[in-house]
Amino acid sequence: MYLGVIFATLCALIALSFAILSIRWVMLQPQGDERMRQIAGAIQEGASAYLHRQYLTIAGVALLPMLGLWHWLGAESGVGFLVGALLSGAVGYVGVLVCVRANLRTAEAARRGTNAALQVAFRGGMVSGLLVVGLALLGVAGYYLVLAPPDPDDFAAQTGALGALIGLAFGSSLISIFARLGGGIFTKGADIGADLVDQIGSGLNEGDSRNLALIADNVGDNIGDCAGMAADLFETYAVTLVATMLLGSLLLQEHAADAIAYPLVLGGLAVLATVVGTFFVKLEPGDTRVLAALSKALTVSGVLAFVLFVPATWLFLPATFIPPGSEEALSRWGVLAAAGIGLVLTGLILVSTEYYTGTDYGPVRGIAKASLNGTATNLIAGLGVSMKSTGAPALMICGAIWGAYQMAGLYGIAIAAISMLSLTGLLVALSAYGPIIDNAGGIAEMAGMDAQVQGVTDSLDAVGNTTKAVTKAYAIGSAGLAALVLFADFTHSMAAGGNVLSFELESPAVLIGLFIGALLPYLFSAMTIEAVARVAAVAVDEVRRQAQEVPGIMAHPPKLDGGRTVNLLTKNAIKEMIIPSLLPVAVPMAVGFGIQWLMGGNAGALALGGLLIGTIITGLYVAISMTAGGAAWDNAKRYIEDGNFGGPGSDAHQAAVIGDAVGDAGKDAAGPAVNPMIKLINLVALLMVPLL
Amino acid sequence: MYLGVIFATLCALIALSFAILSIRWVMLQPQGDERMRQIAGAIQEGASAYLHRQYLTIAGVALLPMLGLWHWLGAESGVGFLVGALLSGAVGYVGVLVCVRANLRTAEAARRGTNAALQVAFRGGMVSGLLVVGLALLGVAGYYLVLAPPDPDDFAAQTGALGALIGLAFGSSLISIFARLGGGIFTKGADIGADLVDQIGSGLNEGDSRNLALIADNVGDNIGDCAGMAADLFETYAVTLVATMLLGSLLLQEHAADAIAYPLVLGGLAVLATVVGTFFVKLEPGDTRVLAALSKALTVSGVLAFVLFVPATWLFLPATFIPPGSEEALSRWGVLAAAGIGLVLTGLILVSTEYYTGTDYGPVRGIAKASLNGTATNLIAGLGVSMKSTGAPALMICGAIWGAYQMAGLYGIAIAAISMLSLTGLLVALSAYGPIIDNAGGIAEMAGMDAQVQGVTDSLDAVGNTTKAVTKAYAIGSAGLAALVLFADFTHSMAAGGNVLSFELESPAVLIGLFIGALLPYLFSAMTIEAVARVAAVAVDEVRRQAQEVPGIMAHPPKLDGGRTVNLLTKNAIKEMIIPSLLPVAVPMAVGFGIQWLMGGNAGALALGGLLIGTIITGLYVAISMTAGGAAWDNAKRYIEDGNFGGPGSDAHQAAVIGDAVGDAGKDAAGPAVNPMIKLINLVALLMVPLL
Repeated sequence: MYLGVIFATLCALIALSFAILSIRWVMLQPQGDERMRQIAGAIQEGASAYLHRQYLTIAGVALLPMLGLWHWLGAESGVGFLVGALLSGAVGYVGVLVCVRANLRTAEAARRGTNAALQVAFRGGMVSGLLVVGLALLGVAGYYLVLAPPDPDDFAAQTGALGALIGLAFGSSLISIFARLGGGIFTKGADIGADLVDQIGSGLNEGDSRNLALIADNVGDNIGDCAGMAADLFETYAVTLVATMLLGSLLLQEHAADAIAYPLVLGGLAVLATVVGTFFVKLEPGDTRVLAALSKALTVSGVLAFVLFVPATWLFLPATFIPPGSEEALSRWGVLAAAGIGLVLTGLILVSTEYYTGTDYGPVRGIAKASLNGTATNLIAGLGVSMKSTGAPALMICGAIWGAYQMAGLYGIAIAAISMLSLTGLLVALSAYGPIIDNAGGIAEMAGMDAQVQGVTDSLDAVGNTTKAVTKAYAIGSAGLAALVLFADFTHSMAAGGNVLSFELESPAVLIGLFIGALLPYLFSAMTIEAVARVAAVAVDEVRRQAQEVPGIMAHPPKLDGGRTVNLLTKNAIKEMIIPSLLPVAVPMAVGFGIQWLMGGNAGALALGGLLIGTIITGLYVAISMTAGGAAWDNAKRYIEDGNFGGPGSDAHQAAVIGDAVGDAGKDAAGPAVNPMIKLINLVALLMVPLL
Repeated sequence: MYLGVIFATLCALIALSFAILSIRWVMLQPQGDERMRQIAGAIQEGASAYLHRQYLTIAGVALLPMLGLWHWLGAESGVGFLVGALLSGAVGYVGVLVCVRANLRTAEAARRGTNAALQVAFRGGMVSGLLVVGLALLGVAGYYLVLAPPDPDDFAAQTGALGALIGLAFGSSLISIFARLGGGIFTKGADIGADLVDQIGSGLNEGDSRNLALIADNVGDNIGDCAGMAADLFETYAVTLVATMLLGSLLLQEHAADAIAYPLVLGGLAVLATVVGTFFVKLEPGDTRVLAALSKALTVSGVLAFVLFVPATWLFLPATFIPPGSEEALSRWGVLAAAGIGLVLTGLILVSTEYYTGTDYGPVRGIAKASLNGTATNLIAGLGVSMKSTGAPALMICGAIWGAYQMAGLYGIAIAAISMLSLTGLLVALSAYGPIIDNAGGIAEMAGMDAQVQGVTDSLDAVGNTTKAVTKAYAIGSAGLAALVLFADFTHSMAAGGNVLSFELESPAVLIGLFIGALLPYLFSAMTIEAVARVAAVAVDEVRRQAQEVPGIMAHPPKLDGGRTVNLLTKNAIKEMIIPSLLPVAVPMAVGFGIQWLMGGNAGALALGGLLIGTIITGLYVAISMTAGGAAWDNAKRYIEDGNFGGPGSDAHQAAVIGDAVGDAGKDAAGPAVNPMIKLINLVALLMVPLL
């Protein structure tokens, strides 16, 4: 019957148990002295206040789409939306709570050496990773078990159940875009604000604990790279599972029940592989190759997952099958090869991102060198790198599309996406590792810990920059593939509804859709970047005001009252996240119904199809260029700080600081938010199918 | 018989006669004193040296494609290539020779007031405008007359003649991309170099005539905005004429001969309207609304052209016609309406560009205000504006596609492009006006002319910034439409060859093509921006070296030896232009033949179709965001220089200067070069049709 789905549910529960064990382990680590706890307490307080307010606002805004789904598409969709939304929220919430407790424990562990600190930081991040895959799998598989018809071969009932899962995907997507945007705007508003306070001559500077934006900056790191990334990949994971289940049911109609279970089973196996992989993150005393240790875990998990995929494929898929409308038979071997392609793609994207954003290679060093001639050349060099860095990932994705399609048609692309997402747990852990170690460094500095401790956190933090960049590239690449699967769902659902459309490039409706779709990432990013700028200005004004008003703040020792600044930033960031988030919901509806009304015939659906692809295409380029470019600028600054091209304090360093600030808004706010955006648009289109 | 074509040829000759009269008039204007002539002489010398070297290099590089065309597609195509290449070269060459002679005459005329200076500058620019439309029309109509079969209804022979014209379009396109790139890299390398020299503390500064990069900067303005823009729009004009002739012959098969003549006749009539329009560029004494005077000329020409189009449409088109493969009949009224849409689109694009780049509106003032918080916020604000500015033009183009298609199908889109290009002559004049007045200001400053003269040139120059931005937006918009017409030619030529393809978004070949196509503008721009940065670094090094080596240069009065700098920049810019220029030639071939080999079937052609549309889509966004963003940064600096937000010399001003420099490489080198690129790719695809 539904054994595969039950198996996946069990795997999800295993992942969640490991998450709970990891939380326990982290909480039992020593917390350091009074001063450290005081600083960490301020960060915890700020983070809780932010999350509280953010999810309260989201709950209010999300009520309307939930009721809409309930009304138009039935109670199952409405409840699905609620499940997706709540789980996505829980992932971000719990993950951050753990991160802001792992940070000072990491700082304390750094006294005992690099491996000790690495263990605490990585396990802290692993909580988020396990929560993402565990809850996504539990939500999708569990809710499907609730809805699944008693007779697995009842095709109409299966379609209904999958429809309700689209509601779940939509819920997770909408929460994710809010979390990404709100978190991104907050964190970069605070970060740029903190940088600016120094430059505009208030007498305070970034690393100075008197700088009241600093606590906000530390809070922001957590809600951006921990909560934001977790919500982002939760959404990609859940959406891809649902999209592949749906596509499988449409393409393998005679084996629909097994095809629906198959991606869930792959997900369950990948979770087991992930848990095994975590044990390989370890450093021998004296070894400082952190990146190598992390890469080993990824490789072990990936290979193990692939090995486990073989029997699963033989159990759940027929030896050959012919998708409707096609003449060529596809085979189990082909599907397995597509899964392999997804894993290879992951590896290649990680390598290419490391090249474009690592301090060991030409691009970052080129930006650092250009800083010698001033700020303008630093920025021009950075813009060049940011645009160039799109080339390799784009060609790799093209190669993966080609390979997966040759191996197993459209279904191959879906399976490649699923297998790429096998590594989600570890990659979320790598991303959440970033703010933990970054915070640990900040706490060590503010609490005046030994230079040796700061050396340990610094060396781990340098890797954090790269892992954050790598995770973002992975998130975007997988989002692109997931969105293509959603597009295939869209066209096949239209066809299954008797509306076989030809989305031809010559059609003016398709062309108009493509142009408008391609515009969306630009508009969306512009709105996000401008929101960051506004919030940063608020931060600067507040710090200036406090520096003038609070008597003696400049003369006295650190006085950690970041609470006000955090509150102010929270209020502004959450206000700013609403409008851009609604863009991907409103525009597909406007284009679909609007073009239909203007041009008649099937024009609305055709334009919508064009819109989806247009958004995926430019979304990919806009997101990659912003995230990779931003990381390259950041690391160019770091490279100079390591003593190259004049070192810290030189003119080149000053130029690099500005380049870093310019890249920040795109790297951590606008760019990553494009991922949920392109999927949200596709999901909205999918939900519109019955209405078109 | 071919009366329409002969009429168009005569109109072209009229335009050329007016160009000659304008040259004569400009040359007869007084040239000012010895010092002015000396400075202008240095600019002339530099410009000649640059053009000489550029066209020599181009001639060498272009030999290979010409021989290729000759060999594979016949002598007519090879000769066509030669004609297109030579005329495109001539337009740029002669235009610049006039510009660098109009500049000092404009400075001298400024003694007599604003209108006198405006007349000289505008007439100087008008030479380029008239040359562009005159030579393009003469080349296309004339070469067609040479090739046209004695029996106009001989369809096969007509197709052959049009095929040779594609060779002509290809020639003009290839030269144009070289000119755009070489000129852009040179001019921005010099400009950024000149800016940098000041910032990095050599003791020289930008406005100082001791700064040896300054002459190069003035030379660069001419070869960028005069030669570059002329070559760019020459190419768009010629390509659109050929593409519309070809599409007409395919869609109106029973009236092929008339359909071939029709766009040429529209072009001829538009030339006459342009000549009339030039007489409306005039200022009453005391009136300084330069932009209003220029807009009046545009409006008069546009309206007059449309009025003349009415009888032409009735003479050359049948009352109704049904394109092959379609069921709906199209009418003359519809075609005329499409022509109207092209003119309205032009007006709307100009207005939207003025909004995003003018000092009177929110976007530019926002960037200026953001400069108060430092360089980083200036840059973030500018990036926001640059991305946002794509919205309005993109939606307008979508609206035009929709409207033109509703009115007259695909043919309507072609006619909208043709009618949009009616105003080419005046718009090239507006662009070339920019460097003339900019140079005049430079000459006035360096020659120490009266403050009142400098006031006149400054007020005219402020408008020059806007007209240059507006012209670029126009060039990109028209390039987008022209490229869509070429895409239609591509699909219809495939169909006419018996290969009816369905370019469906679901096809993996189309998707891969779309992704790779979308990547090209990114890669191309990145390469161009990096080339600019390298050339700027060369300029800085050279100036530094001369400042150290030439004894006494810092103490002595201005010593105008920019020759060495110009030579060095020329050599480097021309070296840098080769590789990016080959990208749009090599990639379509690699994708078309490569995907064909990998995937078989029709995959090569399908991927090529995707590639074309992908390039058009991101090309539009990349080009608009770079050119509008750059202009907005530039004018934000100017707005501060006008005394706002602290005025010249303030911290905000310094931030704005850096923003301007960062925007420069995109605004004048990478962005504009995208126009010929997207058409070149489409032309290469069109030439590949017989081979696929």
